[in-house]
This record gives sequence, structure tokens and C-alpha cells, in this order.
Amino acid sequence: MDYQELLHDAMDAARATKGRGRVADYIPALAGVDPGGFGMALATVDGEVHGVGDWEKPFSVQSVSKLFSLALVLAHGGDGIWHRVGREPSGNPFNSLVQLESERGIPRNPFINAGALVVTDRLLTLTGDAAESVREFLRAESGNPDLGTDPVVAASEAEHGHRNAALAHFIASHGNLDNDVDTVLEHYYGHCAIAASCRDLALAGGFLARHGTRADGIRLLSRSEAKRINAVLLTCGSYDAAGEFAFRVGLPGKSGVGGGVLAVLPGRASLCAWGPELDAAGNSVAAVAALDAFTTATGLSVF
Amino acid sequence: MDYQELLHDAMDAARATKGRGRVADYIPALAGVDPGGFGMALATVDGEVHGVGDWEKPFSVQSVSKLFSLALVLAHGGDGIWHRVGREPSGNPFNSLVQLESERGIPRNPFINAGALVVTDRLLTLTGDAAESVREFLRAESGNPDLGTDPVVAASEAEHGHRNAALAHFIASHGNLDNDVDTVLEHYYGHCAIAASCRDLALAGGFLARHGTRADGIRLLSRSEAKRINAVLLTCGSYDAAGEFAFRVGLPGKSGVGGGVLAVLPGRASLCAWGPELDAAGNSVAAVAALDAFTTATGLSVF
Amino acid sequence: MDYQELLHDAMDAARATKGRGRVADYIPALAGVDPGGFGMALATVDGEVHGVGDWEKPFSVQSVSKLFSLALVLAHGGDGIWHRVGREPSGNPFNSLVQLESERGIPRNPFINAGALVVTDRLLTLTGDAAESVREFLRAESGNPDLGTDPVVAASEAEHGHRNAALAHFIASHGNLDNDVDTVLEHYYGHCAIAASCRDLALAGGFLARHGTRADGIRLLSRSEAKRINAVLLTCGSYDAAGEFAFRVGLPGKSGVGGGVLAVLPGRASLCAWGPELDAAGNSVAAVAALDAFTTATGLSVF
Amino acid sequence: MDYQELLHDAMDAARATKGRGRVADYIPALAGVDPGGFGMALATVDGEVHGVGDWEKPFSVQSVSKLFSLALVLAHGGDGIWHRVGREPSGNPFNSLVQLESERGIPRNPFINAGALVVTDRLLTLTGDAAESVREFLRAESGNPDLGTDPVVAASEAEHGHRNAALAHFIASHGNLDNDVDTVLEHYYGHCAIAASCRDLALAGGFLARHGTRADGIRLLSRSEAKRINAVLLTCGSYDAAGEFAFRVGLPGKSGVGGGVLAVLPGRASLCAWGPELDAAGNSVAAVAALDAFTTATGLSVF
Repeated sequence: MDYQELLHDAMDAARATKGRGRVADYIPALAGVDPGGFGMALATVDGEVHGVGDWEKPFSVQSVSKLFSLALVLAHGGDGIWHRVGREPSGNPFNSLVQLESERGIPRNPFINAGALVVTDRLLTLTGDAAESVREFLRAESGNPDLGTDPVVAASEAEHGHRNAALAHFIASHGNLDNDVDTVLEHYYGHCAIAASCRDLALAGGFLARHGTRADGIRLLSRSEAKRINAVLLTCGSYDAAGEFAFRVGLPGKSGVGGGVLAVLPGRASLCAWGPELDAAGNSVAAVAALDAFTTATGLSVF
Repeated sequence: MDYQELLHDAMDAARATKGRGRVADYIPALAGVDPGGFGMALATVDGEVHGVGDWEKPFSVQSVSKLFSLALVLAHGGDGIWHRVGREPSGNPFNSLVQLESERGIPRNPFINAGALVVTDRLLTLTGDAAESVREFLRAESGNPDLGTDPVVAASEAEHGHRNAALAHFIASHGNLDNDVDTVLEHYYGHCAIAASCRDLALAGGFLARHGTRADGIRLLSRSEAKRINAVLLTCGSYDAAGEFAFRVGLPGKSGVGGGVLAVLPGRASLCAWGPELDAAGNSVAAVAALDAFTTATGLSVF
Repeated sequence: MDYQELLHDAMDAARATKGRGRVADYIPALAGVDPGGFGMALATVDGEVHGVGDWEKPFSVQSVSKLFSLALVLAHGGDGIWHRVGREPSGNPFNSLVQLESERGIPRNPFINAGALVVTDRLLTLTGDAAESVREFLRAESGNPDLGTDPVVAASEAEHGHRNAALAHFIASHGNLDNDVDTVLEHYYGHCAIAASCRDLALAGGFLARHGTRADGIRLLSRSEAKRINAVLLTCGSYDAAGEFAFRVGLPGKSGVGGGVLAVLPGRASLCAWGPELDAAGNSVAAVAALDAFTTATGLSVF
Repeated sequence: MDYQELLHDAMDAARATKGRGRVADYIPALAGVDPGGFGMALATVDGEVHGVGDWEKPFSVQSVSKLFSLALVLAHGGDGIWHRVGREPSGNPFNSLVQLESERGIPRNPFINAGALVVTDRLLTLTGDAAESVREFLRAESGNPDLGTDPVVAASEAEHGHRNAALAHFIASHGNLDNDVDTVLEHYYGHCAIAASCRDLALAGGFLARHGTRADGIRLLSRSEAKRINAVLLTCGSYDAAGEFAFRVGLPGKSGVGGGVLAVLPGRASLCAWGPELDAAGNSVAAVAALDAFTTATGLSVF
């Protein structure tokens, strides 16, 4: 396949969506991004990398980082995390407290904010530094030593983070945090505020395309664990619109309100698309359109 | 692959779960089934059929029929149905009225009872006989002319169907039914109470493995439509446990409280497993265990 | 006190609200009422009756009838009804299914639609004719032999009653109806569609002002039962705005979407105000304003 | 009436409930109380005070303090608070986040925890010291200069207060707090952890029996404001069991998890009963039983 041409066509589809969404503005540091930006990268399992548009420009990874913190918890600590967080779609907006209350502090899945706080808490206990663990992993897989947390974004998230603080205190009230609420929040913001490019993320997501093996050939997760993360991505990776994403794109994927979406073609490639305008569910309009165009043109999907 | 041996191993795994679930007892006609029964069939895209255990014994297909009514609506009437029913996981037990109320009578997806009633209503309008359309399709694909609705089960469902009647009236109160409530319920029970075997259903599900083509080579759905049904099956096909099913089995699938589960390996095969003991979410314990064992042993899954 | 003058002042306050609400239009038979109509009546415990405006013109009593069906159940059958219906405010719109589901078919209180259906079911069992029991009671207390059910309104309610049918089937699915769903609905519509005037209802509510004694001096309810009905009226009598009604008016009261509100001054008088324009919660804007003006001017309230 | 004898009879009724509830144990400082304790006091509008049992022994007032912080906000700042908090029963357990989320950070009423946090925030802005304002008022009305906050209880609440912290952050995320979250919580715990006796509270609640006038004859609230606080107490003062309290006791009242209940007979008297064992809704079993016995024996109730 001529991936480069396919990426160009996907970019055309993405650009046609301009103006159909809104840039995240819940923190000032994110609101300043150029709404018309777009980039896309594809990394094959055997090392090829392709890209179009702003594919090497860093953006705020936000919830895309949740995929890596989950993978690192599983790599370090095994399956214990599944007693503290579920793996069902939430059926409610991504930062809802409702289910958390009716389900006694066990978040529905690791990709809603509540679940990601529990995963961060666990990674903190396992490694001593949850945010740095994620950064190190991303640096190693992408080969980009400059990749780091944007301190302005992290500080802005903390300052405007009453809702996440509410979630963390609520989970703590149910005994489902091991570490101090403020420390967990700091590490959560630390990994959400990482700045990385489409290229960086496509490469960093390669272990899911390679059934669990890192870029250097060393196994991070078992084949079965990698398959299962892909399953959770597909059912829970796009906030309240996971069904829609599966319907349109047909790939496991994780989105973030920074506008990035990382998707996986198991056994073949990992892709990352980015565009800052979001739909009502918080997913990038351009990135989803690009991935939709790509899977439709190639017939490549898990279905 | 030696499918026959794989099916035998899967049956061993299924039988080890004996006693871990409960046979559906909400209607007397279902409660009488032998709890220890098990069968499994696999139909490849090029016509091979394999089976073990009670694979040729008919059981009540129940919600597995919802997959066929949806496919037939799409085959007849195009995409209009998606204005009347969503495609997101519900995040709530399968017959919940809560979301229906907060979402103005638009069911979350076509596989919860509320959504299936809307699909049945549409199929009734399109064909004049929703239940018979499903039966005809199943007969044609399975090559089994004797396949039909069990009148005792259908009558029993109607008699104990206050909850479905409540759902139907509630949807009607929002203007989302075209036909009379009682007629829609009659056709709904008519296709849910169909008795079919694992063999019948594995064959009848073949169009999803063949990307939309029927057993006779005629196209029922476009490739894209078939992919999309698979996506909805994966995110919404197992009641409130779709995440768990994706996590363990990794295939699109549809379960029914009669104990059947139909699953799809796109491009390769369709499978049906049956065992009447259900877990708390309403999925067959033995059938899920068998499919889990099969995909783990073969490494075959969509992820 | 010069009640006649007080009622005139209250009518002035009521008329100033003209245009602030909307006439109920969920059934055509109600939508035809003159939006500018207003009436008010007061009946003292010792037999005086005063009235202003359209106080002798019949209107559709709707949910005001629920107060009488509850009183008659208690008069006939004692306290058993409280095992089948609660007495807490619902905190949700008046025809909500949500709590009914989470609370296993036990309606929150006897004045939401779900609860009134259970009360009607019980009255039907106790008397053989729930609607006629309510009519007879109203005729006797008001001395108006012509008082009856408006057949056009009753038929219209049945025709547009998918939501009540949904509630009734849902309650039946939890085993909380003794009679057939259709019969219960028929009697429910039968008493809701009674046409009565402010004069009729003020007189008929007198037993609550007289601590349980009927107009003829015969005891209907014990003093304690009458007190308790007043308590339930105050906490649950105004749909989702019982707190607001208590805050503004400070009397036990029951409203209906026909625009009537019946209120009680224990030990002193019963009042009925009517105006067809409703606020968002379903309470008559003019009637509440009139009662507010009356209690503010007189300093008469239970607080 | 022989109040002293009536109180003795009420105490007998209360003592018969021994063992039917559980002492609050969500903080260690409360769990240490003698479960068999009971006291009751009555203060008439013209200055008589009566008491039985442990009526002069201080206990933790907890949510009973919410009544005073609301009254002081109204006394200082007028009606503006009603834009920031509602006055409807919540229909949900007292510390629920659910409605807060669906209703955009506006708590249902001033007596659920969320609402009381908003009231405390407002009192803090109006007076500079919310907790001290409540203490000063209680000292002045009760004539007890030693009345103060128990520092051990306050510290214990803060330490185990993740749920209240979650509520406060959540309200702040909706912009409904003017002061810093931690400061609001400190003042909230400051007034909840006040230790006062039945005698102190019965006297301090006298302004509601005197239609808004303080013990020294000076007006705190208008007659209409006092009436309205009584209305909110009746519909919202007993957590999720306000309907039940109105049904049984028939008086406006406010309960706390320290076991106290303050109730008002408008125009006549204020009463406070205390017993540490709580029912499932968080109301004192003994105190409610005592008030029930008192109102049943005397026929005194607002209905």
C-alpha cells in the first residue's frame, strides 16, 4: 500500500471538517491552539514511519496518555488493577460522578477520568513516579529525548481542576486510592500534560500493533494482555462515543481533548491523527474523519 | 487448523463451568431446559461446518435474533433506522428504562430490548411481517426448512411481558413507534422465540464473516454495512458486559438469554456456542468460556 | 375575617399572572380551555362557603382526584397501602420511571402517577369500582348530584396514555398491581377526568380541615390519618415543586394539570383555586399566586 | 399542658427503641458516644424551659447547625442565597452527588451537605467567620457562654472528609463557591462540630417558634422568612426521610447524625430531642420516636 498517498487523502478528508468542532477551552493553556492544525502519522510493525501535515509538531496528549499508564501498570504489576477499576463502557459523559457513586468508588473503566486516577495511583505506588514513567516510555519508544511535560499546561490543569479533585476525593472516600489525593492529581496532570507529536505517539503505540513487544524487541506485555488492552480501547477509548468510533473507524483507539487520537491496526501498524477541534463528546473531528477515510479507503479495520 | 479438535477443547473448557450460572427463569417455558447442555458449531467462509456436543439441538434464540432483524432492516431500508436508535453501549442493565427516559425515547442501541423493539417496528413496516422475515432468512441461510417459532415460548413471553410492554408504550409515548404497540410486541416475541441450533445460527451468521454476502453469494449488505454491524456487536452485543466479552473473547458477538452466543471472525468464520446457564449480566457462562478458550488457543481474535 | 374580600384580593393577584404559564396540551380535550379563566372557593369547617370568579364552573380535576382516592383507600382498607407505595417526595418530574425502576416497582408516594395507579388498583379491589367511589364521595360532600366524569376527557387520556400504560405495565412487572393493567388504567382515567368546580372541591376537601370528619359529621378517617394525609400533601402534593409550594403558600395542597389546586388550613377551612395556565412543574400559576396572596395577607399557614 | 409529664412519656417511648439503630461511625470521634443516651427539652415562646434525661448534656450538633447558618445568611444578606441553592427535597441520600451533577452545581436545598456548603460559603463572605457566627448566635440564644466547637470532632471530620471535599470541589467546578474550598470546609466542620445540649438547641431554635424574633425580642427574620424556613425544614430537614418525618411527627424539624433533632411548633414552642442511634436515613430513632409520641399525645402538629 502507498501509505503516504493514503495519509494525504485522509488529510484532505480531515481538512474538509474545518469549523465543525470547538477547541477545548476548559483551561486557557489549551485554548490557544490553532484550530486549523492537522497532522497524521503511521508506523508499521516493521519500522516504517509515514506522516503528513503537522505530524512532527507536539500537542498536548491529554487522555491519550491514559493508554500508556494502563500498559505500564500491567507491565509492572499484573492484573490486580482490575479489582479497582472495571472495563465496561460508561454510557455517560467522560467525567461523570454518577456511576462512581452508584458503583461504590470503582470506576467503570481505566479511560474515564475516574479510572485513570486509580491507574495513576497504582503506577505511582509501583514505580514511585507515575508521570516520569510515562514520559520515559514515550521517549524510549519514539526515540525523542526532548519529549516532556508542558509545565504551563500542567499548572493550568491543576488550577482549573476542581472536577478532577472532586473525583479523586470521592474515590478516596471509598478507599480506592493508596496515595495522597494531591500527589495522585499532580502525577495525573503530569502525564496528561505531556507534549508529543503524531510521530511520537504512533511510534509509542507500536507495542499494541506488535502484540505486546516494544520497539527494541523486548516484550512489554503478553500477547493476551496486548489483545485485551486493544479490546478496552475499542469499547471504552473514545469517551461516550466509543460505539460511534467503532462504527465509523473500526479500530481500537484512544482520544484526548488535546485533539489527538491514537489507533491500532493489530499486527500491522499504529496511527496517530491530530486536529484540535472537538465534537460534543470530546473527540477530534478532524482526527476521526481522517481515520474514517483511511479505514474506508483501505478496507483495513478489525471487522 | 484442526477446527474439530479446537471445538472439543473449547467444549471441555465450557463443561468445567457447570453450576456457575443460572438458567433463565423469567418465563416458565425457558426454565425447563437441561442446565448441563452444551453445543458449539463453526462455519467457515468457504462452506465448511464443524460441531460438537448438542450442536444440532434447537434452543430458544432470544436476543440473538436481534442481530438478524437489524441486518434485514439495513438490507431493506438503508440507514434511516439510525435516526431512531443509537449505537452506543448503554452502560446499564439490558432492559433499563432510565436512559430511554433521559434520552427522549431514542434507545441507546439496537440490541437492548428497547432498541430491538424499534428495529422490529421498522422491519414490520418494511416487510409486513417482521417475525416471518427473520425466520425466512434463518431458514435460507441454514438450509433448515423446519426452523420456526416455538409457540409455547412466544405465548409465555407475551404473558410475562409487562416489562417489554412498558418499554414499548414508553417508546410510543415519544412517537418512536410506527405500528401499534401490541403488534410490535407480537412480532418481537415472534422472532425472539425462534428455536434454532448452533449449526443453524453459525450458518446464518456467515454473512457477517463474508463481509455482507449471503450463503448463495448474493450480497445482503455492503462491506461497510457488514463491518459496522460487527462494530455494534462488539460494543453492544453482550448486554451490560460488552466490555468484558471483548476483553475475554475479542470477537463481535451477540448473546441471548436462551444461552446462545453467535460470534464472528471477520473474513474467516462464524461460530455459535450454547449453554443455558447465565451469568449475572445474562450471558451464557459456558458459551463465553468456550469462545474464550477457542480464541486463546488459536490466537484468532479481531485484536 | 372578611373571606369574601380576601378572595377578591387573591383573585387580583392571580389575574396579574396572566400569560405566565401554558395550558396543558398533552391531550386535545384539555387544550381547549380558556387560558384566562380563574375561580376560587373557601369552605370553613363550620359550613360557610365563599367564592369568586368562575368558582362554580366545572374543570377537569385530574391529579386533585388522587387525594380522594387515597383517602378512600385508607377509609376502607387501613394502612396496608403503605407497603405498596412510599411517602417521600420523588425529587423527579411527576411521571418519572427512573425511581420506580431503582426502587423495584414501589412508587415514591401516592401522588405521582405511578403511586396513584397503585392506589387506584387498591381502591378497585376494595370497592369494585374505583372511579365511581371517588365520584360518589365528591357528590356527597359537595352536595352536587350532577358531578361526573367527562367522557371525552377520559377517552382522550386513554388514547394518549402511552406513558401511563408504560408505568402500569412496569409496576405490574414488579408484581405491584392486583388487577388487570387495562382495568386499572380505565379507573384511573375515570377519576382523573371528573369535572368539578372550585366550590365542589373546596367542600369535598373539608374532611381534611375537620381532622377526618365528613360534611355530615360522620368520621371518614381518624384524626391521626387526616393529619398524615395533610403531611403527605405538603411534602408530595405539588409534583416536583412541593418545596416551592410549601415555601410560598405554606399549606398542604394538591394540584392537577387541569389547573386546580386544593389546599387545607387544618382546623379552619379548605380552599380550591383554579386557573388553567401551568408552570414548568405542572402547577397552576394563577392558583398558586392566589393561595400565596391569601396566606400572606391573612398570616394563615401551617407554619 | 403539663409539659414535664409529656416529656417523661416521650422519653419512655424513646427508650423503648433502644437497639433499633446504629451510632454514627463515619468518624471515630462520634462513634464513642453512649448508644443508650437520651435527652429532650422544650422551650415555650414565653420563656418556660422543660427537660428530661440528658437534656443538659452536650452532643455534636452536626447538621442541626445548618438551620442556624441558613437563618444567619438570610438575616445578613437577604434572599440572594436562593439563586445558589434550591428548596426542593432531594429524593436521594443526603450526600449524593448525582443531582448536583445533573443540576449544574446548584444543590437541591440548603440542608443536604452540598447546599450547606454553599450556605457556609455565603455566611463566610457575609460575616468573615461562618463558624464563629453560628457559635455566637447559639451562645446568645441559649445563654450558655461555654458552648463551642469540639476540636477533636472538627479535626476528625476534616481527616475523614473526602466526600465533603469532593462535593465542595464539584460545586467549585460549577463556579458556585466564592471562597477557597479548604476554607469553606474548615468553617463547615467548625459549625457542624459544635457541642450543645438539648436545652441549648431548644432555646436557640426559639426564633422559629416566635415567627422570627430572638430571645431578646429583637427581630432576626421577618415573619414571612421565619415561615419559609419552617417550610424548608418540613420538606427538606430530615435527609431522605422528610416525608416520613412529616407523616409521623408533623412538625418542621432538622436532624443531625450526632443524634439531635430540633423541631418547631410555630407560635408555641421549640423542642429538641437527642439519642445517638440512627436509622438508615441518618435520623435519630429515639428522638423521632419521642417527638412522634409527643405530637400524638398532645394533638399538637402543624396539620
